[in-house]
Amino acid sequence: MKRVGILTSGGDCQALNAAMRGVEKGLRENIDELEIYGFFDGYKGLIYGNYRLLSHADFAGILTRGGTILGSSRQPFKLMRTPDENGLDKVEAMKHTYHKLNLDCLVILGGNGTQKTANLLREEGLNVIHLPKTIDNDIYGTDVTFGFQSAINVASQAIDCIHTTAASHNRVFIVEVMGHKVGWLTLYAGVASGADIILLPEIPYDINKVIEAINKRTREGKGFTILAVAEGAISKEDAALSKKEYKKKMEQSKYPSVSYELADRIREISGTEVRVTVPGHTQRGGSPCPYDRALCTRLGSAAARAIVEEDYGCMIAMINNETKRVPLGEVAGKLKTVDPNCQMIKEAKYIGISFGD
Amino acid sequence: MKRVGILTSGGDCQALNAAMRGVEKGLRENIDELEIYGFFDGYKGLIYGNYRLLSHADFAGILTRGGTILGSSRQPFKLMRTPDENGLDKVEAMKHTYHKLNLDCLVILGGNGTQKTANLLREEGLNVIHLPKTIDNDIYGTDVTFGFQSAINVASQAIDCIHTTAASHNRVFIVEVMGHKVGWLTLYAGVASGADIILLPEIPYDINKVIEAINKRTREGKGFTILAVAEGAISKEDAALSKKEYKKKMEQSKYPSVSYELADRIREISGTEVRVTVPGHTQRGGSPCPYDRALCTRLGSAAARAIVEEDYGCMIAMINNETKRVPLGEVAGKLKTVDPNCQMIKEAKYIGISFGD
Amino acid sequence: MKRVGILTSGGDCQALNAAMRGVEKGLRENIDELEIYGFFDGYKGLIYGNYRLLSHADFAGILTRGGTILGSSRQPFKLMRTPDENGLDKVEAMKHTYHKLNLDCLVILGGNGTQKTANLLREEGLNVIHLPKTIDNDIYGTDVTFGFQSAINVASQAIDCIHTTAASHNRVFIVEVMGHKVGWLTLYAGVASGADIILLPEIPYDINKVIEAINKRTREGKGFTILAVAEGAISKEDAALSKKEYKKKMEQSKYPSVSYELADRIREISGTEVRVTVPGHTQRGGSPCPYDRALCTRLGSAAARAIVEEDYGCMIAMINNETKRVPLGEVAGKLKTVDPNCQMIKEAKYIGISFGD
Amino acid sequence: MKRVGILTSGGDCQALNAAMRGVEKGLRENIDELEIYGFFDGYKGLIYGNYRLLSHADFAGILTRGGTILGSSRQPFKLMRTPDENGLDKVEAMKHTYHKLNLDCLVILGGNGTQKTANLLREEGLNVIHLPKTIDNDIYGTDVTFGFQSAINVASQAIDCIHTTAASHNRVFIVEVMGHKVGWLTLYAGVASGADIILLPEIPYDINKVIEAINKRTREGKGFTILAVAEGAISKEDAALSKKEYKKKMEQSKYPSVSYELADRIREISGTEVRVTVPGHTQRGGSPCPYDRALCTRLGSAAARAIVEEDYGCMIAMINNETKRVPLGEVAGKLKTVDPNCQMIKEAKYIGISFGD
Repeated sequence: MKRVGILTSGGDCQALNAAMRGVEKGLRENIDELEIYGFFDGYKGLIYGNYRLLSHADFAGILTRGGTILGSSRQPFKLMRTPDENGLDKVEAMKHTYHKLNLDCLVILGGNGTQKTANLLREEGLNVIHLPKTIDNDIYGTDVTFGFQSAINVASQAIDCIHTTAASHNRVFIVEVMGHKVGWLTLYAGVASGADIILLPEIPYDINKVIEAINKRTREGKGFTILAVAEGAISKEDAALSKKEYKKKMEQSKYPSVSYELADRIREISGTEVRVTVPGHTQRGGSPCPYDRALCTRLGSAAARAIVEEDYGCMIAMINNETKRVPLGEVAGKLKTVDPNCQMIKEAKYIGISFGD
Repeated sequence: MKRVGILTSGGDCQALNAAMRGVEKGLRENIDELEIYGFFDGYKGLIYGNYRLLSHADFAGILTRGGTILGSSRQPFKLMRTPDENGLDKVEAMKHTYHKLNLDCLVILGGNGTQKTANLLREEGLNVIHLPKTIDNDIYGTDVTFGFQSAINVASQAIDCIHTTAASHNRVFIVEVMGHKVGWLTLYAGVASGADIILLPEIPYDINKVIEAINKRTREGKGFTILAVAEGAISKEDAALSKKEYKKKMEQSKYPSVSYELADRIREISGTEVRVTVPGHTQRGGSPCPYDRALCTRLGSAAARAIVEEDYGCMIAMINNETKRVPLGEVAGKLKTVDPNCQMIKEAKYIGISFGD
Repeated sequence: MKRVGILTSGGDCQALNAAMRGVEKGLRENIDELEIYGFFDGYKGLIYGNYRLLSHADFAGILTRGGTILGSSRQPFKLMRTPDENGLDKVEAMKHTYHKLNLDCLVILGGNGTQKTANLLREEGLNVIHLPKTIDNDIYGTDVTFGFQSAINVASQAIDCIHTTAASHNRVFIVEVMGHKVGWLTLYAGVASGADIILLPEIPYDINKVIEAINKRTREGKGFTILAVAEGAISKEDAALSKKEYKKKMEQSKYPSVSYELADRIREISGTEVRVTVPGHTQRGGSPCPYDRALCTRLGSAAARAIVEEDYGCMIAMINNETKRVPLGEVAGKLKTVDPNCQMIKEAKYIGISFGD
Repeated sequence: MKRVGILTSGGDCQALNAAMRGVEKGLRENIDELEIYGFFDGYKGLIYGNYRLLSHADFAGILTRGGTILGSSRQPFKLMRTPDENGLDKVEAMKHTYHKLNLDCLVILGGNGTQKTANLLREEGLNVIHLPKTIDNDIYGTDVTFGFQSAINVASQAIDCIHTTAASHNRVFIVEVMGHKVGWLTLYAGVASGADIILLPEIPYDINKVIEAINKRTREGKGFTILAVAEGAISKEDAALSKKEYKKKMEQSKYPSVSYELADRIREISGTEVRVTVPGHTQRGGSPCPYDRALCTRLGSAAARAIVEEDYGCMIAMINNETKRVPLGEVAGKLKTVDPNCQMIKEAKYIGISFGD
């Protein structure tokens, strides 16, 4: 007999349902008496006791469905210790719900912030298992996160579409790819779709290098240039600002995002026509790709087995194509960013892709 | 024996190559001695004599390829009678190239502006055949244009992706769909993807009606609202301005496009979180969908037959699923906009979609 | 106040859910007191009283979902008047369920056979509205059926995939497309995807003409040939058989379908390597395309309005891009096949596509 | 100054062009004087001196294009030492062409057989670099081959489509997935798409276990069952036959492939309706997915660098997400099959997927 809670937290992404289905199928096959409680809208559901007993039917047909059947919300880790507007202690409230339902374990799907709260709950004595979800691929301790490959597909398709139209006209195109702090998504989508210039948060760019890369293409007779630009791409000047100064600058900016400002700078300096495309939240939407579905089915199955074996307090990671249980205490709070000197960046530069540095 | 010129003009779209392949296959099958000259970058190639004799191999494998193998450019109709910077009379230059190559006919793929120039060339004595290309579907005299259905697919997919993520959070999402003057693309993509509010250039919106439609959804327990907004969507206040005043307003606007301004207004009035997605030029890129490919193969075949039968001066239209030769003089200069009282709008309103009016 | 029943019958296809959503939204918006009863597995649910009161939530998020939330089954029209194994009179049973639930109307989604039964129920005094569903596009009285365009997309994608691999090797490829009696799907998918030979049930083929078309391509230096072959494609010899003889022949055939036999014949006569691909039921599966979703939303809305206006006994058709109420009595029992002399066939032949005749 | 030959050999797959583009861009960026010779139709072009000097333009726009711009053919390794019909020594002929063109290196894209011949050429003193291409993922010494993920996508999409239609009816569906000797593709596509039963060449199945798995689903109220069956799936009885006996049995079989025979057996034993879908060569066709494009761009870049550094005789492998040069002598002739006891199989069984064993 097992009672298992489950929740999805943070920005949603494509294979959350696939992962939950994997967990449920694994539990259902291997535990005779089973109750699964789904908490709505992430930790909010756990805090305020908003949940529902889930049946097998709730998980039917969701393997390919985007979003999350449980809903999600952002509950910043740094506010977890702060009482809510009614003075409620959120951590105690979560523990209360957990114990009231007499749960054996809580399965938590989410990204970095979610993981930190999961680790906090572990420290508070709850049994938790974390599944690494994020289109950003920035979770430390796993080779890959789910949602990442699906998001690459959406971003790549956007760049692909731009490619055919760019090749028919002579222009500079900017495609803004999600990623405020890390550039994995922009890097992979950019390389996969033949972007000429890739700007990442981890590699501050020199606007003159960007212009030079555009001019080089023009000199080679290529009429168009495509830039894959992360939401968090930053110029060398801005990178030199203090965090506070930069934040202030962004708040006062008339531009809705970095790409529009970059477009204006390129226009001013080079006189070229520049178009901006912002796929935005489409990158975390739509159906999960088969890669993510196979990944999530495996992660879910492995999570179920960990529960059956009562081995808690871990993230189920994928390392060298094997699922592993990684202690949460070893990974929570760490971020996996793009190393500017990593092999993939070198390979990209070797074929002529500019990173503006 | 026939000598045929071909060019693609204006903004590119998805099935230009498919249409040219249809023309070529039709000509090649039915004319023993055939020369096809491809002009580069639209009318520019015709004006400046920039062309190439195309072989059968040039048309191989292009049925599914986006963009145009000939390149394209915008050559505004209203400047056609204005000499270029070197004093060259463009119309005379086009006639010169046509006669120098001893062409029997010129096949011109393009939208409204392109069609007007094609009609001008017809009036000047050239044999022309026009194929109705545009993602805007705004060409008068044909039920449908090619590119339209492919663009609907791209725009719909963007809204679909937003749907799964929107349903997981509680927010207002705006997807900006292409279309400055006409709303066909926004209307079809919006209806096809279940947008809750659709704003078209043809139906000026009342911001309070928009807010009311959002609030209605909230009252019904639906956490999110999706707006499909045409690039040329306009508020009732702005619609009341003179064309000149409105142009001035837009030039001075700090917003890169109408959606960002609308987002700010919704935020201010309702306090809701609003996200903007701008698929932009992706809507005219990527592979053509099978609908457009079948359409273009038919239009191309019909154009070839018209050339064999030496029946010129027409657009090849699709009317009631039959290709027809429509005299250019009857249609050039006319625009097909969305009638606010058309059946489809009524049907959309009947199921609760708001048009902000 | 209205009580409406709804069911989906016959082979499933891609936009059944989208159509039901349209009906529901239209009814919900315009009727204050509304009850919608969903019958499971087509007419079976109506016969045996297997149904459920559907809530608004049942229709949420189903616009893009393939299949049917109500299930479907084939209940042959010609057996409708035959009692079931327990002696139950099916027609009376359906009337009984209808009256027991005090229904105002029954919305029936299905193809030709379904339509005939719907007409029978109309004759028996029930209020029915029929929505034309089939990937075969063979329903008389409407320009297009829903599912058709989505199925074209699946079949076209299969042929597209074959194209890239065929072009890399030198072979004959057969793609078997759904359609036992009518060839619309094969015709459109074949033209859209550049098939070289298209074999339809309506145009019996001469195997020598097929071989000759393959040889012509070889002579022209094209290493591969792609055939789009309908399930019901038939040779001239077989077409000369009586229906009974042909049925017997097919039952005794060692081949699972016509394509495998055709492949063997081509191999024997020409010595060429031939590969067969059978996308099969994938053609009625997967998500509906935006075209079908917009179509179904309109048909559903129009059906809802007909119910509100109490105008029953009709099919909601799409004619010249306008929804129309067509009396069932005028269309039931009629089949819309491909006319071998229609314009599209002529256009296809004009560009060199062989139909084996 | 470098002269480099390139060829694609064996069954084609989706990212061959992407890989060649990567090689070319890497060489072009880093070598001043460069000549690239493309050999047509695999080793055939090398044997018979059928090649062309390739320009930069030949590689433009091919990143997303399926197939291979050079063509391919199968030249069995075991016949390489056998003279052709005219008595030509193929190996000597290849060496002759290589030396005649004064090549510095030969880049060879292909699978297992291709790799063995590449190794043979290495032993004969030629400088070769091999890139691991195959949808089968069965090349020893690399974590992944290109084409594999794209093929998973095609096969998964087929199963997905079957899912929606299966869920609407009550039937058993078999989807036959490519793979005569190894089951990677079937395993991944099956898991990714929620197949209920997965039959691989590496795990001979017991027909009674298959029937039992179907019956279990029926008992659980699930109306349909989906089988992902590899082309080389084999029953325990057949696996007990000698290789010769089995080959004879297959040649005499009336079934075009294993799935049709399996379907008949299931029908006979269980009386259930069974449908077969054979996506066939579609699985190696169509556009490469972004995963494969990023992979190939990296492999191609790494190959170019190896050429610049004159480090030959290796396969460029991907190991732990790093490209590596693996000596051909260490890997040629080895096959990477699915270990029936590997973690992924265990995870799949843990959630209830049957492998028929």
